[in-house]
Amino acid sequence: MVVPFATLLLREQPRIARAVESLTAALPSYVRPAAEYALNGGGKRLRPLLTVLVSRALGGKDQGDGVYPIGAAIELFHVASLLHDDILDNASLRRGREGTHIRYGVPRTLLTADAMVSRAFQTLAETGDPRYMVCATRAVIGTADGEIMEIAHQGSTEGGLESYFDIIAGKTACLLRASCELGALWAGADDATLDLVAEYGHNLGMAFQMADDALDFAPSSETGKPEGGDIREGKLTPPISYHMESLDAPARAEFVRRFAARDFSDEELAELVRAIRAGGFQERTLKLADSFLDKAAAALEGFPAGGDDQAKAALAKAIEFVRNRSA
Amino acid sequence: MVVPFATLLLREQPRIARAVESLTAALPSYVRPAAEYALNGGGKRLRPLLTVLVSRALGGKDQGDGVYPIGAAIELFHVASLLHDDILDNASLRRGREGTHIRYGVPRTLLTADAMVSRAFQTLAETGDPRYMVCATRAVIGTADGEIMEIAHQGSTEGGLESYFDIIAGKTACLLRASCELGALWAGADDATLDLVAEYGHNLGMAFQMADDALDFAPSSETGKPEGGDIREGKLTPPISYHMESLDAPARAEFVRRFAARDFSDEELAELVRAIRAGGFQERTLKLADSFLDKAAAALEGFPAGGDDQAKAALAKAIEFVRNRSA
Repeated sequence: MVVPFATLLLREQPRIARAVESLTAALPSYVRPAAEYALNGGGKRLRPLLTVLVSRALGGKDQGDGVYPIGAAIELFHVASLLHDDILDNASLRRGREGTHIRYGVPRTLLTADAMVSRAFQTLAETGDPRYMVCATRAVIGTADGEIMEIAHQGSTEGGLESYFDIIAGKTACLLRASCELGALWAGADDATLDLVAEYGHNLGMAFQMADDALDFAPSSETGKPEGGDIREGKLTPPISYHMESLDAPARAEFVRRFAARDFSDEELAELVRAIRAGGFQERTLKLADSFLDKAAAALEGFPAGGDDQAKAALAKAIEFVRNRSA
Repeated sequence: MVVPFATLLLREQPRIARAVESLTAALPSYVRPAAEYALNGGGKRLRPLLTVLVSRALGGKDQGDGVYPIGAAIELFHVASLLHDDILDNASLRRGREGTHIRYGVPRTLLTADAMVSRAFQTLAETGDPRYMVCATRAVIGTADGEIMEIAHQGSTEGGLESYFDIIAGKTACLLRASCELGALWAGADDATLDLVAEYGHNLGMAFQMADDALDFAPSSETGKPEGGDIREGKLTPPISYHMESLDAPARAEFVRRFAARDFSDEELAELVRAIRAGGFQERTLKLADSFLDKAAAALEGFPAGGDDQAKAALAKAIEFVRNRSA
């Protein structure tokens, strides 16, 4: 019997939540409140779930609960990076409630994020195996690299989708990949299997971001976010790139200039959103995402037998979950 | 022959600088420029020097160069925390040149600091011994805890010097102590020696901060900083605490109220600075610092024989360096 992915997500929530709680409970008293607030923001805990599922898919059901703190550590990295995003964007809300930096102030939130990252590394160090640390530090550095590259490329159309792939491989795929790799380390996977797991996580992460970038052109009524925000922010995502490529030379040159200057009026923006929808560039982006999901599925197929088949089936469901994200 | 501390600082700079360079050279391309800029700001590299000296004082001269990357990692933690301070204070200058966040922007600087911290942890993880990581993560968490406590106590006179000790044990002494502990781990020190090293580093760090807080009341012409800035920022440092204690009950109540509201005029501030100087409260703060330095010296005396005596003498010089900081 294959359990739906959402059911599985829900079923694992309590154990993941307890692991997150016990990590934060060990934080000193001035750090704990903002960390607890930030971590109780109602996220899906997708990353720890991947850690747990990969460890079971490879090592079987009976590995005890030791993998949960490792998954929880990944969640701390992720939520700390969301705190940074909120500070940088000066967003007032996060998932519908007051942002941590609004409630606790920017200095305290920034310092709490630092402590959360260190607490996560500490948890990984406590396994006694330095490979967990090496994997996680590489992921955090890669995430920062991708995010800085994105800032450096704002308004730029150079490099086209190749630059976009480099950016999202860092800012999004890196940590999702590490979530999977840490689960594989826990299961005692060999190097060949670790490569397959990295391939699964990387491609799932790439597709995850592309689906998100297609959603930027979905109606506000569905997403609760302004439409075409990526155009205004000068991010050359696939729908925007496809639109640009569809223009004749003079129109394209004009678009490149305006995109670089980021001076579209509200009306022009609405017109661009309409053109992107009419051109079918969202769907084309989702097709592109599908090609990455196919690679994730192929990697998953190669996972060695002998683990927990239900967990492996759930990892296949995770692929479908991303495939249907903006359907 | 005992080498003066400043000479020793200078003599070790090239090797420490090379270790810092090779750590940053391994950073990915979008992270590297701001990291290199931040790390070339002309700091004294006191923390890596302590790591190197402690390792030699305990393990002898002939331990190879492996301790330098460990010292360099500590410098990355330290400089990353300075980047945060600059962002939070919105300081335009750091050590007389343009701040990293001014040159590279706040988002990029914040992300670069994250990558620097992870690079530092990565370096420690690569030793293969999880104790380095556990020591460093505890220090980074403790630093954040102390800094948040300081923010939470702004304008408060509650807890008096006890609260002050808790704050500076975190925000300053934690990382200095870890600098020493990591050197001791490198030298293969036993637990009893590690305790002595921690005692040395903690007390040196406490005194270091107290000397700094006495300097807050030195003439601007000497420090290049406004006088009595800690009063305006609501930090109950020893000179301010001693002044408060010297007042009669009504004057003290008035001071507590104004300190909490942080509404001193420039004239009142100048008057407070004069009163603190006239009361000899800077000197009393330095005497307090001396009592911590005496504890550091006692711990140093207990270091086991058999290491490099010149390095041990240099650690004694480090104590004198802090003792004379504001003389």
